[in-house]
Amino acid sequence: MSTKKLWGGRFQEQAAAWVDAFGASISFDQLMAEEDIEGSLAHVKMLKATGILNADDSDQIIAGLEGIQTDLEAGKLNFTVENEDIHMNIEAILTDRIGAVAGKLHTGRSRNDQVATDFHLYLKKRLPKIIDELTTIQKTLVKMASENVETIMPGYTHLQHAQPISYGHYLMAYYQMFKRDKERFTFNEQHTDISPLGAAALAGTTFPIDRQMTAKTLGFSHVYANSLDAVSDRDFALEFLSNSSIMMMHLSRFCEELSMWVSHEFQYLELSDAYTTGSSIMPQKKNPDMAELIRGKSGRVYGHLMGLLATMKSLPLAYNKDLQEDKEGVFDTVKTLLPALRVFNGMISTLTVKKDNMQHATENDFSNATELADYLAAKGVPFREAHGIVGQLVLKGIQTHQNLQDMSLEDLKKASPAIEADVYNDLKSEVAVERRHSEGGTGFDQVRHQIEVAKQELNL
Amino acid sequence: MSTKKLWGGRFQEQAAAWVDAFGASISFDQLMAEEDIEGSLAHVKMLKATGILNADDSDQIIAGLEGIQTDLEAGKLNFTVENEDIHMNIEAILTDRIGAVAGKLHTGRSRNDQVATDFHLYLKKRLPKIIDELTTIQKTLVKMASENVETIMPGYTHLQHAQPISYGHYLMAYYQMFKRDKERFTFNEQHTDISPLGAAALAGTTFPIDRQMTAKTLGFSHVYANSLDAVSDRDFALEFLSNSSIMMMHLSRFCEELSMWVSHEFQYLELSDAYTTGSSIMPQKKNPDMAELIRGKSGRVYGHLMGLLATMKSLPLAYNKDLQEDKEGVFDTVKTLLPALRVFNGMISTLTVKKDNMQHATENDFSNATELADYLAAKGVPFREAHGIVGQLVLKGIQTHQNLQDMSLEDLKKASPAIEADVYNDLKSEVAVERRHSEGGTGFDQVRHQIEVAKQELNL
Amino acid sequence: MSTKKLWGGRFQEQAAAWVDAFGASISFDQLMAEEDIEGSLAHVKMLKATGILNADDSDQIIAGLEGIQTDLEAGKLNFTVENEDIHMNIEAILTDRIGAVAGKLHTGRSRNDQVATDFHLYLKKRLPKIIDELTTIQKTLVKMASENVETIMPGYTHLQHAQPISYGHYLMAYYQMFKRDKERFTFNEQHTDISPLGAAALAGTTFPIDRQMTAKTLGFSHVYANSLDAVSDRDFALEFLSNSSIMMMHLSRFCEELSMWVSHEFQYLELSDAYTTGSSIMPQKKNPDMAELIRGKSGRVYGHLMGLLATMKSLPLAYNKDLQEDKEGVFDTVKTLLPALRVFNGMISTLTVKKDNMQHATENDFSNATELADYLAAKGVPFREAHGIVGQLVLKGIQTHQNLQDMSLEDLKKASPAIEADVYNDLKSEVAVERRHSEGGTGFDQVRHQIEVAKQELNL
Amino acid sequence: MSTKKLWGGRFQEQAAAWVDAFGASISFDQLMAEEDIEGSLAHVKMLKATGILNADDSDQIIAGLEGIQTDLEAGKLNFTVENEDIHMNIEAILTDRIGAVAGKLHTGRSRNDQVATDFHLYLKKRLPKIIDELTTIQKTLVKMASENVETIMPGYTHLQHAQPISYGHYLMAYYQMFKRDKERFTFNEQHTDISPLGAAALAGTTFPIDRQMTAKTLGFSHVYANSLDAVSDRDFALEFLSNSSIMMMHLSRFCEELSMWVSHEFQYLELSDAYTTGSSIMPQKKNPDMAELIRGKSGRVYGHLMGLLATMKSLPLAYNKDLQEDKEGVFDTVKTLLPALRVFNGMISTLTVKKDNMQHATENDFSNATELADYLAAKGVPFREAHGIVGQLVLKGIQTHQNLQDMSLEDLKKASPAIEADVYNDLKSEVAVERRHSEGGTGFDQVRHQIEVAKQELNL
Repeated sequence: MSTKKLWGGRFQEQAAAWVDAFGASISFDQLMAEEDIEGSLAHVKMLKATGILNADDSDQIIAGLEGIQTDLEAGKLNFTVENEDIHMNIEAILTDRIGAVAGKLHTGRSRNDQVATDFHLYLKKRLPKIIDELTTIQKTLVKMASENVETIMPGYTHLQHAQPISYGHYLMAYYQMFKRDKERFTFNEQHTDISPLGAAALAGTTFPIDRQMTAKTLGFSHVYANSLDAVSDRDFALEFLSNSSIMMMHLSRFCEELSMWVSHEFQYLELSDAYTTGSSIMPQKKNPDMAELIRGKSGRVYGHLMGLLATMKSLPLAYNKDLQEDKEGVFDTVKTLLPALRVFNGMISTLTVKKDNMQHATENDFSNATELADYLAAKGVPFREAHGIVGQLVLKGIQTHQNLQDMSLEDLKKASPAIEADVYNDLKSEVAVERRHSEGGTGFDQVRHQIEVAKQELNL
Repeated sequence: MSTKKLWGGRFQEQAAAWVDAFGASISFDQLMAEEDIEGSLAHVKMLKATGILNADDSDQIIAGLEGIQTDLEAGKLNFTVENEDIHMNIEAILTDRIGAVAGKLHTGRSRNDQVATDFHLYLKKRLPKIIDELTTIQKTLVKMASENVETIMPGYTHLQHAQPISYGHYLMAYYQMFKRDKERFTFNEQHTDISPLGAAALAGTTFPIDRQMTAKTLGFSHVYANSLDAVSDRDFALEFLSNSSIMMMHLSRFCEELSMWVSHEFQYLELSDAYTTGSSIMPQKKNPDMAELIRGKSGRVYGHLMGLLATMKSLPLAYNKDLQEDKEGVFDTVKTLLPALRVFNGMISTLTVKKDNMQHATENDFSNATELADYLAAKGVPFREAHGIVGQLVLKGIQTHQNLQDMSLEDLKKASPAIEADVYNDLKSEVAVERRHSEGGTGFDQVRHQIEVAKQELNL
Repeated sequence: MSTKKLWGGRFQEQAAAWVDAFGASISFDQLMAEEDIEGSLAHVKMLKATGILNADDSDQIIAGLEGIQTDLEAGKLNFTVENEDIHMNIEAILTDRIGAVAGKLHTGRSRNDQVATDFHLYLKKRLPKIIDELTTIQKTLVKMASENVETIMPGYTHLQHAQPISYGHYLMAYYQMFKRDKERFTFNEQHTDISPLGAAALAGTTFPIDRQMTAKTLGFSHVYANSLDAVSDRDFALEFLSNSSIMMMHLSRFCEELSMWVSHEFQYLELSDAYTTGSSIMPQKKNPDMAELIRGKSGRVYGHLMGLLATMKSLPLAYNKDLQEDKEGVFDTVKTLLPALRVFNGMISTLTVKKDNMQHATENDFSNATELADYLAAKGVPFREAHGIVGQLVLKGIQTHQNLQDMSLEDLKKASPAIEADVYNDLKSEVAVERRHSEGGTGFDQVRHQIEVAKQELNL
Repeated sequence: MSTKKLWGGRFQEQAAAWVDAFGASISFDQLMAEEDIEGSLAHVKMLKATGILNADDSDQIIAGLEGIQTDLEAGKLNFTVENEDIHMNIEAILTDRIGAVAGKLHTGRSRNDQVATDFHLYLKKRLPKIIDELTTIQKTLVKMASENVETIMPGYTHLQHAQPISYGHYLMAYYQMFKRDKERFTFNEQHTDISPLGAAALAGTTFPIDRQMTAKTLGFSHVYANSLDAVSDRDFALEFLSNSSIMMMHLSRFCEELSMWVSHEFQYLELSDAYTTGSSIMPQKKNPDMAELIRGKSGRVYGHLMGLLATMKSLPLAYNKDLQEDKEGVFDTVKTLLPALRVFNGMISTLTVKKDNMQHATENDFSNATELADYLAAKGVPFREAHGIVGQLVLKGIQTHQNLQDMSLEDLKKASPAIEADVYNDLKSEVAVERRHSEGGTGFDQVRHQIEVAKQELNL
């Protein structure tokens, strides 16, 4: 009977189709069809090399799988829910094509190590792509920073003007975040680059298989040291979801600021029309939709992380069907990250920096108050006392609608006799920025240094 | 130009197709196509009734929408990513069919209230289905409980035998959980059953629309009292995800126990073949896959809850594109819950209860120790002292491989002179269960009472 | 031996102190000391009334507990880790005071139903407090809204100026959110207001207890119908955490906007000094710390929800020690919510609304574009066509630095001959707001109506 | 005025005490008192070395801080909510002791870089402790595994007997998980071991500070390259929470199995009395409380991860008060992990392995079915066909209450003529285990090899 399950020997009743559909994973694990065939090819070649299968049987299976591989690439394969998952689907197609000898492919292997192998391979291929997209963004940031070393803008804390900074410095802060993201994904590769193949159901096998050989064929650097661990471990997926969550958090912070900076109130940046959308009702709208959507998608990725952590909690070893839930969140995260990173890069690389607005915003506020406090501290006033003096001047300024640089020397001297005429130079925002020579500070020299180091890191 | 955006008046550059694809929601919001058309029909009928549109224009639009509705049901509509979302897709199709007059449909409406209306309608239709499935499960539990009032099994705390209970009592505990789940989903209906239609972009409209009329047409009991709230509120979706998470937690608890109880070690239950699967490598396996999968899917639903909570955090009013992320988690939760509940019901209604194994498990342990302590307490020994006496007897029993009922009266009396020959009756597990007459206890009368109340609640 | 466990009869080895400390809950469950004593008093009074204990024993226990109650209020009790939890601590103190008769208190009761009772009582007392704080905030919002019905500000979507709205309308949107929050907490009371007392360990008891009596004494409206459910159920706590998460999300949205609106760029609001802080280094800073902290605390509450959902996942019935983890998250959420709500209320009730800045922001933008489109639509131009015409005018306006109201009638007519001189009235922001008479819209009449309804709801 | 804020120059109104209390962090950040003083000492020594402060002022401050350090260790310091946080409290104490010169300590520093420095130092000190505890557990596992290489037990998938395995093999699976946990915490050290000190408020400082010097004094290997990033970055904390979540998940899996394996039904393990507790009502109970509590605490740690991810989402640069929420979750996680790991180690190192029960469980089931299928496959029967044959035999065995090894050769031959008398040897569970020589399999040689490698990794 054609829909008889491959594992159905001991069973007397069949599940209803809708029950099967609930249990089936083919709707999503077909994304790993390529990896599944690769894994099977590596396995059968090893079975041949070790003599577990004879050359004739092996060659038939190899030819069959290669044919399926070709058809997959051509989009000619049809998968069915009756065959549950990608593994059973491929095997069923193979059986249709080459007959009962196909059954020998599963010698010394189980779906438990097979699915783990597919999943490792899947992620192993995607991690470098994500790292590449991050590098592309880093290059864009370095380019933008190079063009904006001396672009002055208000630095914010608590969304209040704090001290003037270089916009290039701001951009390089994100460069650092993405650098750490890359380091995390690179570390993630370590625990992904391990072959579970040959762990069989959970205990290894009595067949004299060669796990090193299959690992090498598939490009894995290591094999799992313990078969129970090999089929139960999803740490690599959790690491990926965690790393992705942190990365999306970084993107969400940039996008949050971007959405403010393109607003009517800030007008620091303008997005290209190509990365905005309009409103169905309000003709004037130019919405930073892409930034908002990337920001919003952080929630989705957080959810996938939390979902898998919850699913894995308290699961006894080794394989349990709960683990079937490990894949969709990871697949969706990959599907989210890659375009999000590309759109992010396109969006920032085409935006217009309104330097005048940024600069102007630093001249109309009290963000040079620290300069005055530091000026007094440098003249020997304890910093806490200096802080208090300037605080009083700011209060007076607010009441009289005067910024610090607009106050007369006489008035300033009343607040502290230590103040001299040279104070006015210190109160200029470009001077305030330029003079922050401390390592990693916003001083122009420091920003240029950061850019130089980044270029070396990126081999630019 | 055909792909010109409907909102594109002020735009000079077009987004690349891959950027559009990232922003488009048609891949998932087409699930609300039916609701979108319903909403538009209600809107245009109101525009006609209020005279905002003349009868001729209105009738053309109504006829067009009804044609689209028919084609949707017949599966004949094609949606495109170029038209972004379900709203623009339907409108584009309408324009193709009836020309520029289609543009009048959007009078006094925005996509912001439109999508909120669709989403409310979508959930409003699904909540009763979930409640119905829960009722079906409750009926199954009541039936099973009726058949197992006097089926004795070990009650567990800390997964240790605690006290013997009625299996019917155990089943009725889940009845209560699902009752609360239904109450939560019913409460959820309150905040779903509110029409946002007519809130327009965020501020209402200058057109003399009649929101009560559209609400009534669509079957909504209420309209949102505030237009900003109407387009920003997703509480009903969060309530749904939260309620679903709690419900999945309940299912996960049952499934956890079920997976233990069908194990070789417990053998309290046996699943129908139709709700189990085999292994690709181990011919003897009969795995409770469905139970494991339901248990595992709790993580997925938790993740959707966490995802939307994170996405909504700190969003300024009113609509932001982040909100586009509200739907997939809800859709996937509906798609998870409905079959999970059906499979759960099928699984439990076809399982075999191995009453003898359950009963036997209560006769080979110390789960009657509380009976002895209660026996002593009833004779005036302070409970704490009685507890200590029995603890010593248990320790001795473990060392001498004797259960309490196997000890001689002489030995028992040595532990406490208050013990008489009538103690042996109290130590029988069926007596222990039967005698727990306290309200809501496991005594047979109490279980029967619970079943009676449940039948009334279910109108059985 | 003084540190001998009350349950230690069968045990031969004692745990090390640091192991005990890990398992002990007294460090946090002492928060429920009051409820624990109340529960014990209700229990012993019932034991007396039913004759399970004689009057003499009962009265000794009652007197002992009342003495402990007095000492608790006076802060005179000392709890120890050796006695594990609040229940054992109170019992040990009672035993110290009245001797072995104290041991009779535990007749027909277990720690499992005792802790559940305490926890229900704890939350039952706090829910009304939270609801009250929400009512206070609603009153503040209504008062503020009353004073700002005609305060015009830009309404935002995508953080872009969308359409002018009434600030009172904005405030009433939050009134609605808090109304739903109150409804959720009120619903939460239903599942909290159920007495587990008398469920004993898991199965009820053989003693002829009267659960209705203890429930009534403690102020519970209902008793759990099933004893297994009674000791295992934590739905009420999950509902609370979920409701709290949604409520914190609402607060986070308001606080996000508030932090923007007090920024240098917006200057729509100014906070009282009493709800801001300064910087240790920047003397000019006036940071909206309280708003930020409330916003940030949403994460903490989300975390508690996720934590308990994860902990409860897949727990077999009935009690497991994992459930000890149920309380800290709930306690911390109560400790977070109550002051957060009070601070929020204080913060908003003392802020200064800079009406001129708000109004001015609506006159210097294109937020009246919808008015023009609606103007055209009202003259019979299909809305989509009108939208396109206005979009072109906006684009031209941006290029020529003219707002719509600044364009000549001649220029406007070129865009559409349907435009007449009366258009200029429609382009005024106050007119735009005033005219949005649709139900729930931002029109002044509508805002006033919302305020009226709210006053009725609040009995003002 | 004594309660005047150190930053209060520009402020006219004071916050109420309860508002201050809400904003204050001293209740928890006093955990970093030691680190705060260390950071200040490093800072002032650098100010002296660079000549920013003169020797006299510097020495006074150093002496003052060292005195405070001594008093802290002696438990003599009192912190107050009025002084908000640990930084202001220490500074206030210093000012009390040495007068206004204390104010010079804050030269070139802000609370933003100060708190980040404290937090980095805090975690930098704790990570090695966690890694050490994991190593201790690994050593225990290796010791237990060495003693149980040939202890046979059922290996489980889907909680069904799958194939017999070595208990030592099972233990080594957890060895591998903890190895990865250690690698993650070690990687975590990279992003923790970076000094933010000198980033000041957000932009660096104009004072000629030497960040390399303070970093070196504090034992940091690197300094942050960008000052904005330095004060905004909490990646190291998120990594910690993520790594901790994964680690707790591993513990939860072991504890779940342990709780089953000490149950009446399994009886594979027995816990020492010292790691179990009793019941207040059921004298016979010996509950694996510690295992359950560790399992339950996974939820708590997951919650902290989710909480911080949510809090960080969409935060603009640089410092925002929301970030104050970063610490409690991390502190609580440290406070959870260290004792959990110690209790776990104590619990497993004192448990009794009931080898006979384990072995017996493998002889009374069909877990040797794979052996028979492999036997047939080795004789040339395609694996799929062999699987089907054995499935039929299992079904027959269930119906006739015979295990495979109990069937006559005649009956076996009926199923497949390829079966010979030598099959009975293959059906023994010890043979089944011993023969799984595949790399990483459960064969005794493979388990011994794993143990050897582990000993090398642990330098045993």
